[in-house]
Amino acid sequence: MANVYRMMDDAELQATKDALDHEAEVLASKLLRLDMARGKPNKDQINLSRPMLDILASDSDLTDDGVDASNYGVSDGLPTARKLGADLLGVPYEQVIVENSASLEIMYNIISAIWSHGISGEKPWSEQGQLKFLCPVPGYDRHFAITEHFGFENVPVAMNDDGPDMDEVCRMVETDASVKGIWCVPKYANPTGITYSDEVVRRFAALKPAAPDFRIFWDNAYIVHHLYDEGDELTNIFDVIDSNGDDTERDGLVFEFASTSKLTFPGSGISWLASSMVDRAWYERSLALRRVCPNKMVQLAHVRFLPDVDAVSQHMKKHAELLRPRFELVEKRLSEALGELGIATWTHPRGGYFVSFEGPEGSAQAIVRAAAELGVTLTGAGATWPSGNDPHDSNIRIAPTYPSLDELDAALEVFVLCVKMVALRLELERRG
Amino acid sequence: MANVYRMMDDAELQATKDALDHEAEVLASKLLRLDMARGKPNKDQINLSRPMLDILASDSDLTDDGVDASNYGVSDGLPTARKLGADLLGVPYEQVIVENSASLEIMYNIISAIWSHGISGEKPWSEQGQLKFLCPVPGYDRHFAITEHFGFENVPVAMNDDGPDMDEVCRMVETDASVKGIWCVPKYANPTGITYSDEVVRRFAALKPAAPDFRIFWDNAYIVHHLYDEGDELTNIFDVIDSNGDDTERDGLVFEFASTSKLTFPGSGISWLASSMVDRAWYERSLALRRVCPNKMVQLAHVRFLPDVDAVSQHMKKHAELLRPRFELVEKRLSEALGELGIATWTHPRGGYFVSFEGPEGSAQAIVRAAAELGVTLTGAGATWPSGNDPHDSNIRIAPTYPSLDELDAALEVFVLCVKMVALRLELERRG
Repeated sequence: MANVYRMMDDAELQATKDALDHEAEVLASKLLRLDMARGKPNKDQINLSRPMLDILASDSDLTDDGVDASNYGVSDGLPTARKLGADLLGVPYEQVIVENSASLEIMYNIISAIWSHGISGEKPWSEQGQLKFLCPVPGYDRHFAITEHFGFENVPVAMNDDGPDMDEVCRMVETDASVKGIWCVPKYANPTGITYSDEVVRRFAALKPAAPDFRIFWDNAYIVHHLYDEGDELTNIFDVIDSNGDDTERDGLVFEFASTSKLTFPGSGISWLASSMVDRAWYERSLALRRVCPNKMVQLAHVRFLPDVDAVSQHMKKHAELLRPRFELVEKRLSEALGELGIATWTHPRGGYFVSFEGPEGSAQAIVRAAAELGVTLTGAGATWPSGNDPHDSNIRIAPTYPSLDELDAALEVFVLCVKMVALRLELERRG
Repeated sequence: MANVYRMMDDAELQATKDALDHEAEVLASKLLRLDMARGKPNKDQINLSRPMLDILASDSDLTDDGVDASNYGVSDGLPTARKLGADLLGVPYEQVIVENSASLEIMYNIISAIWSHGISGEKPWSEQGQLKFLCPVPGYDRHFAITEHFGFENVPVAMNDDGPDMDEVCRMVETDASVKGIWCVPKYANPTGITYSDEVVRRFAALKPAAPDFRIFWDNAYIVHHLYDEGDELTNIFDVIDSNGDDTERDGLVFEFASTSKLTFPGSGISWLASSMVDRAWYERSLALRRVCPNKMVQLAHVRFLPDVDAVSQHMKKHAELLRPRFELVEKRLSEALGELGIATWTHPRGGYFVSFEGPEGSAQAIVRAAAELGVTLTGAGATWPSGNDPHDSNIRIAPTYPSLDELDAALEVFVLCVKMVALRLELERRG
């Protein structure tokens, strides 16, 4: 669709600018203070998990499958919590470890441990010179920050509607032994909301990495985070690996992660790691040095509140009821305001926590700045690219979950206005 | 005191051996299965904290000093939990961070982060060649395991009744820039139970390390773990550093740790880190990469259950009532059985979780093995030395907290018998 501002004559453009400026003055006078920056559940979502606080009481049985949750022991986590993770991820119980709240911390620990001690009998990454990590973009800033911290060159890979550009991924992973990993959010990806296709998952599972210590970091953060009854289906990568019969050829290819951070209390939940048995044994060696055991009381409360996959699904339907109107409001407001202007596109996720927005080249930083001036905090422009450096300066992550519907509506009004103002200004600048 | 077996003639020795062997047969027939291996609170101690499970319920206010514990946010922990840590440790609030359960994990993370990224502007430890870490012995196996994992030469330093041999510590720390740290449990030390004297703490605080990236790892694990109303007093090392006026000279000298692991539910509590402000800022940079925040709901439950130092003290008195009889039984049984034999010494702690036992040179492994054969699991011989290598093979850590009094009594009966059998065997071997 053609950029509507490009087609206006100078007078029309000026008149439109005046109208937008006036609108901005009106919005500025409202002294808004709205936050659309992070993927944070809203208050009503949090309250869905309050009944969990009644589950453990002073007279509760604090054992789980013979394990005493209230004392030291069981480094790999409470049996029932491991079982729940295994069922959610669709992997054998033996391959699952349950940890404290942050799956991000497991990712950090794995990267850190390979960096210092190596994996698959290879030298530590710290001794292998300049290394690369693949970063599908737009992607998750906290992922990219970890590999940047450990000195990796974070190499952007294009995200398509069905997942990362697998021709590029295969080429790099299979020919370049300095490529050690790739960050993936395979379901309701952060921030585009797309789910990797069966074909993409199969190509991941069939990778023959040049580096034996290459790993896929499969962050299944939004595994049960559907907005609609009919959720996206993600092919189980471990199943495909098994069916490929590749188990015997290598120690492991995939570290898969999930957590309850957006199921129960964010930051106060439990997280899961699934991997090959060899990788699991490798990880447990450093785990045993860190602490005696994870917080099993938190795990116990969680599995009594959400005892199985069905309970999780029912619980997530309640989340969806709260989130769906927000995502639909984003779609509605963006369509109404920008749908005919030819200046922007955005994604239409059926799950997850974000909408990915593409404005004109060179607009994102200006839009985020303009919105801030009108009292609306957005995720920093560039955050979805390694080192915060979006070469097109066009991508913005919209995080609609935290504000109330009214606040979100007000924030979106500001947002679309800023998009229009910046797009128009870019056209004015082009004309010189 | 002279070794009684040394003074027996051959016939007496053989008669004593026969009597001990008979005793062992009787004990073997009981098919005991007792565990005196780890510093684990007993069931009754755990139950003291069950009321904490009633504190948070579905209708609770989940905010603390304006911070919402139930959602993301506040990387350094809940304000009231930081305040409690500050009051317990006697350091300013600003210098304290609250984390998840395991203070051991903070120690691991700090060592790992200095190893990979350096501190105080120095090169990462990974790039500084062979480095040393001082290990007062006997000491804590999990401490030594971390520095061993990162390739340190763990250098044993003798423990005296008032703390580590400070002449040796000063000499090494102040003249050898490859010495990067020292492991300390300054109060009710693991395993000797002694508390560092005022003089020792002052000498630690006055250290002028040759290496700017040297740190004291001050693991105040047993800070409130008194057995008697009158507890040992530990001089506050941060106070001494402040009074020395050394703050401006260096970024930091001490990382201090504490946790609730033996206050509430082991493995499911909260932990504290105190450091200089510069070191704190340094640590927070890697912390922010790991996770959004610690488990603030667990922190909230803890500070509502134990709101201040006084509440902690009252709670610890209840622990002491359960632990004191166990430690007194150890003292009684060891004194009765071994007090006159001149073959062993042991410590007489007034707090903490352990008694340190010294048998004859070359006896510890044999004693632990003999006890295992009679059904009593002890902490592995050598565990109190780096790499599990006690050069005298004489030290055994006695952990009397977990068994019931009856079980402990039975385990001690086995233990003292094994000590006598091994000491007698050593004398027989000496005679050839």
